[in-house]
Amino acid sequence: MTIRILVTGGTFDKEYDERTGQLFFKDTHVAEMLGLGRCRVEVTIRTVMLMDSLEMTDADRALIAHNCAQAQEDRILVTHGTDTMVETAAAIADAVSEKTVVLTGAMIPYAFGSSDGLFNLGSALSFAQILPAGVYIAMNGKWFPWNRVRKNRERGEFEETP
Amino acid sequence: MTIRILVTGGTFDKEYDERTGQLFFKDTHVAEMLGLGRCRVEVTIRTVMLMDSLEMTDADRALIAHNCAQAQEDRILVTHGTDTMVETAAAIADAVSEKTVVLTGAMIPYAFGSSDGLFNLGSALSFAQILPAGVYIAMNGKWFPWNRVRKNRERGEFEETP
Amino acid sequence: MTIRILVTGGTFDKEYDERTGQLFFKDTHVAEMLGLGRCRVEVTIRTVMLMDSLEMTDADRALIAHNCAQAQEDRILVTHGTDTMVETAAAIADAVSEKTVVLTGAMIPYAFGSSDGLFNLGSALSFAQILPAGVYIAMNGKWFPWNRVRKNRERGEFEETP
Amino acid sequence: MTIRILVTGGTFDKEYDERTGQLFFKDTHVAEMLGLGRCRVEVTIRTVMLMDSLEMTDADRALIAHNCAQAQEDRILVTHGTDTMVETAAAIADAVSEKTVVLTGAMIPYAFGSSDGLFNLGSALSFAQILPAGVYIAMNGKWFPWNRVRKNRERGEFEETP
Repeated sequence: MTIRILVTGGTFDKEYDERTGQLFFKDTHVAEMLGLGRCRVEVTIRTVMLMDSLEMTDADRALIAHNCAQAQEDRILVTHGTDTMVETAAAIADAVSEKTVVLTGAMIPYAFGSSDGLFNLGSALSFAQILPAGVYIAMNGKWFPWNRVRKNRERGEFEETP
Repeated sequence: MTIRILVTGGTFDKEYDERTGQLFFKDTHVAEMLGLGRCRVEVTIRTVMLMDSLEMTDADRALIAHNCAQAQEDRILVTHGTDTMVETAAAIADAVSEKTVVLTGAMIPYAFGSSDGLFNLGSALSFAQILPAGVYIAMNGKWFPWNRVRKNRERGEFEETP
Repeated sequence: MTIRILVTGGTFDKEYDERTGQLFFKDTHVAEMLGLGRCRVEVTIRTVMLMDSLEMTDADRALIAHNCAQAQEDRILVTHGTDTMVETAAAIADAVSEKTVVLTGAMIPYAFGSSDGLFNLGSALSFAQILPAGVYIAMNGKWFPWNRVRKNRERGEFEETP
Repeated sequence: MTIRILVTGGTFDKEYDERTGQLFFKDTHVAEMLGLGRCRVEVTIRTVMLMDSLEMTDADRALIAHNCAQAQEDRILVTHGTDTMVETAAAIADAVSEKTVVLTGAMIPYAFGSSDGLFNLGSALSFAQILPAGVYIAMNGKWFPWNRVRKNRERGEFEETP
């Protein structure tokens, strides 16, 4: 079983630009993180985009969904900014069926040392291996069906919708 | 659903003693790691022992298995040294049925910064939530039934037995 | 001998705000950094301000210079953003004589794990103990008299002026 | 001015061997640490040995002293285990005059993330640039003449002898 990993950016992959003092994207850290976790799950990684999820347009979401639909693998992990992760999950659910798609992200950039990213990646990759077909969000150690979850911005965590 | 976490030590929880220059156990890092991962899964953590798994006796394994059998929760995560993780899994399988028990550990101490521990914890906790009753090892991003896995000491990773 | 440490902010003390995704100041890390370095030099730490040095006004610099002039200690370390460190050094040189004042900072926030801050702090604190009276910048492992140094923004380092 | 850096091992450079669970030496981290500190001081690094200072013999100390004496540079930094740093300093003082030699080390391995090593390196390199000829130990942010210092093993720090 091979898992397709689609990288879209988000806090996960942000870095500090020491010249400007701003955060920016240089490259994804997913391969490095899998190495640190000594992951031996077969994966193929593709960077679809590297962007802040607050700046994603419908066209961006359509592109991500298209990548899910076209992937040969039927188990897919999408790394994504947390702010609009649920919107993108909905777009994927519209376009894809009969595949297991798990979205995950991070609250703190991996490059900053005290990130939740490595925990989330281990968690999401595990859920992606055994959940049945459907679109899910894996955050805070939990999994949620895409249409029963929201981000609680106040608390910085995901929760089931009532 | 509450997950019972049983801590037994292993590389996961080793620290550097600056007075002696040796590695030792002070306390478990599991709660701190779950905090870093912003885990919101309900867990109860119990430290059964803190030891190097090479030094575990049959009595130690019996105690771990007993803790699994007596736990109210039917989903259990055991942190454990990697060297004899499979032996302890076998002892648990002897004593427990109708529960999902997942063992995990680390190759590098969590306290040393570049550990696989956080990835493994996220992975194991996720498998513990959805695998059916049985005893499993979760390492390298994968899950293995306890009787179909061994540690490849040369490569420092777990693999399916032929 | 006691060293007075005046904290003014700068990259040194920036942190990541996970709610907004922006960098911000919460509190200084200087005491924590001295603890990590097991520093036993007697110091008194005072936070004068916590700001990006690009936003400092003449009034801010006057306040820093005033703090240097009023300090009982005649050896002073100032943590400061790198972008206008030289301007503040000039303001201090105008206001203070017969004291050793060393300014230092960082290119990467200490909280981000791969910072130059701890190295710079160890370096600056050492120079502050033995340089004769004067105003200096300690960066890149070197010390520079305030009027013979500039920041090379292209290279992100300090260099002697020609 | 070029500083000669002589590497001899010590906690500074210890690493964790994940196969054996023991600490060992692989290579020195000094160049990497100078890179992290964005050090622009001209240095030449030579690894004389990589060993625990508790295991050093008189012949080892003679070799280190010889390297100090033969070095073209008259400013030298020696990285060294803390346990017998004072003994080696004495051996160097016997063999070398008219040079500034500064010894430093660490209580926690640099590779373990929360080390004092980067602070100590910044400090020692700074002292090495301006102290007059003599043999010194730079630890805990301070500098000590070699014959007026001892390691307080109980507290894990260096202190002036009475």
